[in-house]
Amino acid sequence: MTTPFFVSEQRFDFATPLPLRGGAQLADYSLAVETYGTLNAARDNAVLICHALNASHHVAGVYQDDPDRLGWWDNMVGPGKPVDTDRFFVIGVNNLGSCFGSTGPTSINPKTGRPYGSDFPVVTVEDWVDAQALLADRLGIERFAAVMGGSLGGMQALAWSVRYPKRVAHCIVIASTARLSAQNIAFNDVARQAILSDPDYHEGHYAERGVVPKRGLRVARMVGHITYLSDDDMAAKFGRALRSESLQYGFGVDFEIESYLRYQGDKFSEYFDANTYLLITKALDYFDPARDFDGCLTRALAGVEARFLIISFSTDWRFAPARSREIVRSLLDLKRSVTYAEIDAPHGHDAFLLDDLRYHRAVRAYFRRVMTQGPK
Amino acid sequence: MTTPFFVSEQRFDFATPLPLRGGAQLADYSLAVETYGTLNAARDNAVLICHALNASHHVAGVYQDDPDRLGWWDNMVGPGKPVDTDRFFVIGVNNLGSCFGSTGPTSINPKTGRPYGSDFPVVTVEDWVDAQALLADRLGIERFAAVMGGSLGGMQALAWSVRYPKRVAHCIVIASTARLSAQNIAFNDVARQAILSDPDYHEGHYAERGVVPKRGLRVARMVGHITYLSDDDMAAKFGRALRSESLQYGFGVDFEIESYLRYQGDKFSEYFDANTYLLITKALDYFDPARDFDGCLTRALAGVEARFLIISFSTDWRFAPARSREIVRSLLDLKRSVTYAEIDAPHGHDAFLLDDLRYHRAVRAYFRRVMTQGPK
Repeated sequence: MTTPFFVSEQRFDFATPLPLRGGAQLADYSLAVETYGTLNAARDNAVLICHALNASHHVAGVYQDDPDRLGWWDNMVGPGKPVDTDRFFVIGVNNLGSCFGSTGPTSINPKTGRPYGSDFPVVTVEDWVDAQALLADRLGIERFAAVMGGSLGGMQALAWSVRYPKRVAHCIVIASTARLSAQNIAFNDVARQAILSDPDYHEGHYAERGVVPKRGLRVARMVGHITYLSDDDMAAKFGRALRSESLQYGFGVDFEIESYLRYQGDKFSEYFDANTYLLITKALDYFDPARDFDGCLTRALAGVEARFLIISFSTDWRFAPARSREIVRSLLDLKRSVTYAEIDAPHGHDAFLLDDLRYHRAVRAYFRRVMTQGPK
Repeated sequence: MTTPFFVSEQRFDFATPLPLRGGAQLADYSLAVETYGTLNAARDNAVLICHALNASHHVAGVYQDDPDRLGWWDNMVGPGKPVDTDRFFVIGVNNLGSCFGSTGPTSINPKTGRPYGSDFPVVTVEDWVDAQALLADRLGIERFAAVMGGSLGGMQALAWSVRYPKRVAHCIVIASTARLSAQNIAFNDVARQAILSDPDYHEGHYAERGVVPKRGLRVARMVGHITYLSDDDMAAKFGRALRSESLQYGFGVDFEIESYLRYQGDKFSEYFDANTYLLITKALDYFDPARDFDGCLTRALAGVEARFLIISFSTDWRFAPARSREIVRSLLDLKRSVTYAEIDAPHGHDAFLLDDLRYHRAVRAYFRRVMTQGPK
């Protein structure tokens, strides 16, 4: 491990209303941002990192006053790392609707003077990308050297390439998909129903009552967490190992896996906002660039100009390699430049966040191209 | 479809205490039972059908006063069906702890005069099998021509072959496993936590308060139901089809799969008992005949005498074919007679309940052997 570098959070306020895909608009809003490295004089070395469900703009490094809280992709982004901040100007931005700094359900609604709660409008991947584009304008970035993300972050990268084709030189989509399957949506809806049916949810205005729908959030996180891990990895890490020497014949903890999942659920319910969870799962469900093209992804991607790096992980059953291959196939049909790596990793969907030599080597090697190649 | 035949429920009371694996005992209890066909003079044509999570003793046919409620395995069991009740005397028995007629949490606890609720002891697959053996004694059946079940029912069949090797001529284990994986246990614990954290659960004594933890049961069923269906089947049946013409941009129903799952959850929460759900998921988690043999299934099965039919389904990811193959391998190591069929069916775990020509043909062909062959 290298010594973590210090970072600090910035805040960008926007006063021009942002029209949202769902029909509503946000009158004004703020984005929480972190940047790493230096924007060069040509302003062509900027890399945008898009985050997934429970992450934020805190991509890499640590805060001076909180030296233990490492950024969520610190193994990927930093000086000398695969996304090398000695060469690239890297931007992390917290998405609208989040609970980690950008305007979201926990922010004060200027109309009421109280937290938005469930009055915060439903936001989509495309809305996030539009807000990120306005941030890029503010930072004076005309075109990103790369837009990059894993899982839901990969969907944002893909949406960038469709929505702003001239502003993305390279698009890096990791452990992602062009659209959720029925099974993916089903798991998301279980999570939502757990939250919505928690009596402490109070129609989304729990904050005003000083409570949190923790039971629902806990169950939501437990079911989500199962889908992040591979069956094999769970078997290797936990198997049927018992927490104590014998079976309890009750409903407490018998197996290590129960203890682990409940711990993850408890921890999550302490820091994550329930309305944000609902919003983000909906953004996942709604994302489907092919929807307006009779489900044809190739037609949906016809206008993209970026070069692509697509990476999937063999044991990821949430967004399996077949989903990445679908994107690759459409790009090849369109004769776009695409590099595809399918990493044989045991860790399921979570692999995109973990140290894996081959995975990090593939990203590192690709970023050497990013330095020298423009878009197609 | 053939015309359904009429069946009626029987009740067998037992006054000798049943010692349970968890250390408790049931002082007295009843079993709800249905039988189809006729026990022959030699008393050697009896087939025991063991049920899975949400089923009962009502295996086949209909009741005269309820002609629409077809038994859960009516496509498998009946006159001229794969398990032919013109030749076999077939027994369906509701397990202890269930909410469909046998003694369980909704029964009156003789000690208190109130429903057992969560005071009903934790029961295991082995306890069920012991109670089934006492029922066989009562019916004058020394040895079953076959003990048969799918999913959790298959575990009971397997437990029969281990626990009462001389009383099972043929053991038929369908879409099952010799032990749950960490992932299986994880999904069960999500379901349990949804129920246990429902404020209407009241430590399991909700009946006395006139409420039901419906929200928890609903979420439990939703997550369970996802694991019964294959990803492909869900994609084919629901895909990303919308319930109405456009996206709702809210937390109501957008996709057909949401509507379907919520409906399944609602329906289930109307008729199933929450304490029973907790008990049955625990019985699933605990089942592991290899536990006392350092995890070695072959040693655990060393004493079995039955001949085996094992069937799995290619798209079952709850209890995948690899789990069935593990049982087959151990039986082959022990030089036992075993027939194995891996059916290439699209319907996931639920396939064991559905009409599938090749599957039903395999069972039908095997039952011809059951008529002529004794145990090894």
